[in-house]
Amino acid sequence: MEPFDLLIQNGRVLTMDENMTRIEDGAVGVSAGRIAFVGKSTDLFNARADLVIDAGGGIVLPGLVNAHTHLPMSLFRGLADDLPLDTWLKEYIFPAEHTVLNPETVRIGTLLSCAEMLLSGTTTCCDGYFFEDTVAEALVETGMRGVLAQGVIDYPAPGVSDPKKNIAVADTFLEKWTHRHPAVSPSVFCHSLYTCSPETLKAAKATATRHGALFQIHVAETRSEVDFSRSTYQDTPVRVLNRLDLLDGRTLLVHAVWIDDEEIACIAQAEAPVAHTPESNMKLASGIAPAARLIGAGVPVGLGTDGCASNNDLDLFSEMDSAAKLQKVTALDPGLLDAATVLRMATREGAKAIGLGVFIGSLETGKAADIIVVDIRKPRLTPAYDPYSLLVYAACGADVRDVIVAGKVVVREGRLTTVDLFALLQEAERVCKTIEKSFPRPIPLRTR
Amino acid sequence: MEPFDLLIQNGRVLTMDENMTRIEDGAVGVSAGRIAFVGKSTDLFNARADLVIDAGGGIVLPGLVNAHTHLPMSLFRGLADDLPLDTWLKEYIFPAEHTVLNPETVRIGTLLSCAEMLLSGTTTCCDGYFFEDTVAEALVETGMRGVLAQGVIDYPAPGVSDPKKNIAVADTFLEKWTHRHPAVSPSVFCHSLYTCSPETLKAAKATATRHGALFQIHVAETRSEVDFSRSTYQDTPVRVLNRLDLLDGRTLLVHAVWIDDEEIACIAQAEAPVAHTPESNMKLASGIAPAARLIGAGVPVGLGTDGCASNNDLDLFSEMDSAAKLQKVTALDPGLLDAATVLRMATREGAKAIGLGVFIGSLETGKAADIIVVDIRKPRLTPAYDPYSLLVYAACGADVRDVIVAGKVVVREGRLTTVDLFALLQEAERVCKTIEKSFPRPIPLRTR
Repeated sequence: MEPFDLLIQNGRVLTMDENMTRIEDGAVGVSAGRIAFVGKSTDLFNARADLVIDAGGGIVLPGLVNAHTHLPMSLFRGLADDLPLDTWLKEYIFPAEHTVLNPETVRIGTLLSCAEMLLSGTTTCCDGYFFEDTVAEALVETGMRGVLAQGVIDYPAPGVSDPKKNIAVADTFLEKWTHRHPAVSPSVFCHSLYTCSPETLKAAKATATRHGALFQIHVAETRSEVDFSRSTYQDTPVRVLNRLDLLDGRTLLVHAVWIDDEEIACIAQAEAPVAHTPESNMKLASGIAPAARLIGAGVPVGLGTDGCASNNDLDLFSEMDSAAKLQKVTALDPGLLDAATVLRMATREGAKAIGLGVFIGSLETGKAADIIVVDIRKPRLTPAYDPYSLLVYAACGADVRDVIVAGKVVVREGRLTTVDLFALLQEAERVCKTIEKSFPRPIPLRTR
Repeated sequence: MEPFDLLIQNGRVLTMDENMTRIEDGAVGVSAGRIAFVGKSTDLFNARADLVIDAGGGIVLPGLVNAHTHLPMSLFRGLADDLPLDTWLKEYIFPAEHTVLNPETVRIGTLLSCAEMLLSGTTTCCDGYFFEDTVAEALVETGMRGVLAQGVIDYPAPGVSDPKKNIAVADTFLEKWTHRHPAVSPSVFCHSLYTCSPETLKAAKATATRHGALFQIHVAETRSEVDFSRSTYQDTPVRVLNRLDLLDGRTLLVHAVWIDDEEIACIAQAEAPVAHTPESNMKLASGIAPAARLIGAGVPVGLGTDGCASNNDLDLFSEMDSAAKLQKVTALDPGLLDAATVLRMATREGAKAIGLGVFIGSLETGKAADIIVVDIRKPRLTPAYDPYSLLVYAACGADVRDVIVAGKVVVREGRLTTVDLFALLQEAERVCKTIEKSFPRPIPLRTR
C-alpha cells in the first residue's frame, strides 16, 4: 500500500455518509488532498503515512459547513446590538460599510472570520459580500474553502459606486474565479427582493447560471420584507421569486423565516436549498424559520451563522445547539431536529445546499479531505454516551483540536498554522479603532 | 498599604455594581478572601501583593452565578435526548437515578459538574439533589461556592427510601451545614407541586425558614404540570403556592414558564426570586418563560443551566446568549434582554435570587473575592467595542482564563488547580460505563 500523506488514527469516526456510518477506533487516510481510506484502525496494519495524527479517542468528523455568512463583517462584531433590524441596518451597518470598507479592511475582516471559523471546526463557508475578489484572496491565504459571492444591490455599494455596473462586476468576479483555485467556488448574491429590481434579479441569476454558479438571496427574513413584497408585487417573497423563475436547485434561499406551507411545497418542488440562520434570526428578532418542516418536505437545509454583526460569532457548534432547541420549543416537540439531523445540516446537507455535496460534507473515499478532530477529554464532554448529542448539545468551537482542509493541517492542537494570529489581531484592533473614530454616530455602548 | 494577597491588574473591569461601573485599565485587590480594592491600576502605585495576575487586557468580572442546577446529573449527560419530557424523566432519568446513584457516584458527578463550571467561569451554583451531604463535601473539595439543597419528594428517593423521612433528612442536612463551611449555604428543594403534597411543601418550607435557608421548587415548567395543578387543586401552580403561603423572598421559583400576568404580579408582590432556565426549557420543549416581563415587574431573575441531562452543558455564557436571543425572537423585539441586563442576571441578580446578594455577584469592596478573567485575545472576541456584548453574544466558557473563589485561584491559565482532572475523567468514564451496562433499557443512541 502506498503511504498516506496523512493518517488520523484512534478516533470515533462519524462519517456522516448516507447511512450515518460510525466507526469506533476508526482511522481516516488522506492522499493528495482526498480521503483515501475510512475504516477500522485495525484494518490498517502496517500502513505508513508521512504524518500521523492520534485523535486520542476524540471524535473525527467532516469539517463543518457554514451555509451563510458575510466574512468581513467580523469588523462590526458588537458595534450595534439589541437594536431593531431597521435601525441596526440603516443607521449602523450600512453607514459603517460605506465609511470604512476598502480592500484592506475587507481583507482583515475576512482573515479574522476565517481564523475564527477554522479554529472552531468550520472548513467551508458560503459568503456574500463586496470586494469579493479580496475576500477570495484572503480566504485562500487561510487555507479555508468557500463558495464566495460578489454582492449585487441596486444602490451604490462598497467597491461598486455605480449600481448600473453591479451585474458586470459580478460577472467579472465569476469569470476570474471559475476554475481559478480549487478552494473557491465563485457565486452571485443578490441582497434581497427589497433592494434589487426584478430585472437585476433575473440578470444576476442568468449570469450565475451561465457560469454554473450558485445564486444566493436573502428571502422572507422579516415581516416587513413580506409587507414590502405584498405591497410592491402583490405577493409574498418566495412566490415572487418563483414567478420570476428564479427558484431551482442552484438558488440558495437564505433565512426563509416568514413562509407558509404552500411556499415550503414550492421550494421543495423547485429543489431549491435553504440556509437556516437561527441565531441571527433570534438576535435581530426577525422570527423563527420552519426549518423542521422544510427538512420534512425534502428541502436540503444547511446551517449558517450569518455575519458576525448579527450573531455575534461564527461558531457552528453553538448554532447547531440553538437550531435544535429553538425548533423544539417553538413546536413544543422535543423530538424535532434531533442531534443527528442537526449535525447533518452542518455537514452533508449544508454541503448539498451550497452545491458542493458531491465533493465535501462527509468522510467518504474520494471526497476532499476536510476533516476535524474534537477533543472530548474534558469535563463538559464527559461522559460520551452518544457522539451526536455530545457535539450538538455540549461541545463548543473551542473543543476542536485539529482541522484539515484538502488534506492540509490548518489547525493543530488548537493552533492555526496558516495565519500569524498575533499580527492579525493587532491589525484588526487597529482597523477597528479607526472604525470607532470615523464612525458617523456614537457606538451605543451599553451602560444600563 | 498592607500587601494584598492577590492583585489582578491590567484588566477591563466590569464591576456589575448597582451603577454598572466600568474601569478601563482596572485592578482588583484581594485580602483575606475579600475584595479590598477595585479601581484604576494607576491608583495603585507601589502596591504590593503576594500574587499578581496580569489580566493582559482581558475582561475582569464577578464569577458567574448558576441559579439552578442538579450537580450529579452530569453522569446522565446525553443519556437520553430528543425525547418527550415524560418519557425522558420517567423512563430514563428516574430509573437511572434509582439504579446507579450512591454516595460514590454522586461524588464523581458533582466533581465533574463543578470542574466544568469553574473552568467556564461559574463560581457559585444553586443546586438541588439527593445525597446532598456528599454533594456538599465534593463541592468544597473543588473550591466552588454553592447554595446546596437536599431534595424532598413524596416518593422513595435516592438515599431516602422512606418518603416519610424526607423532611427529617432535609432538616438533618440543614442542621449539619448551617455555619459549617463558608462556601456552603444549605437549602431545601421540594421537587414540585406534582410530586409533593401540600403538607410536605409546608413542612419543608417551615424547616427552611427555621434555619434561615432558601426554599426552592420547580414550578409551572410544563403545560402538563399546569393541567395537573388545575385538576388537583383547581388552580395554577403559582396561585396554589401562594394560597399555601409559600411565596416570599426566600422561595426560589425555578422555571416559571407557564405563568400569566396576574401570577407575575403575585410573584413580584411576594418578592419571590425566579431562576430562568431557557436552554433546558428549549431542549425539553417545555415552553418559553416570560423572563423579560418578570424582570420588568421587578422580580430578581437569575439564570440557571439546569442539570446536564437537559441542557447538556453547564456553560453560563451560552445560557446568557440563549436567554437574550430567545426573549427577543419570541416577542419579535430585539431590544429585550440587552446584553448588560443578561450579564446582570448571571451575576448580581442571580446572587440576589439565591439569597447571596450582599455577599457575591459584583466586584465591590468587602464582597467575597469571586472573580474571573476572560481572555479576549482571540479571533472570536475581536474587536471589543462593547464588553457586555462580547461576553453575552460572542464569548464561551472556554474563553475564561482565570477563576478566583474567595480569594483562592482555582483556575489558572485555563487549568483547574483544585482537582486532578485526568484522574477524575477516568473515574467518571468508569462510572458511566457501569451506568450503560446496568441501565434498565437500551440507551437510545441515534443512528438516524
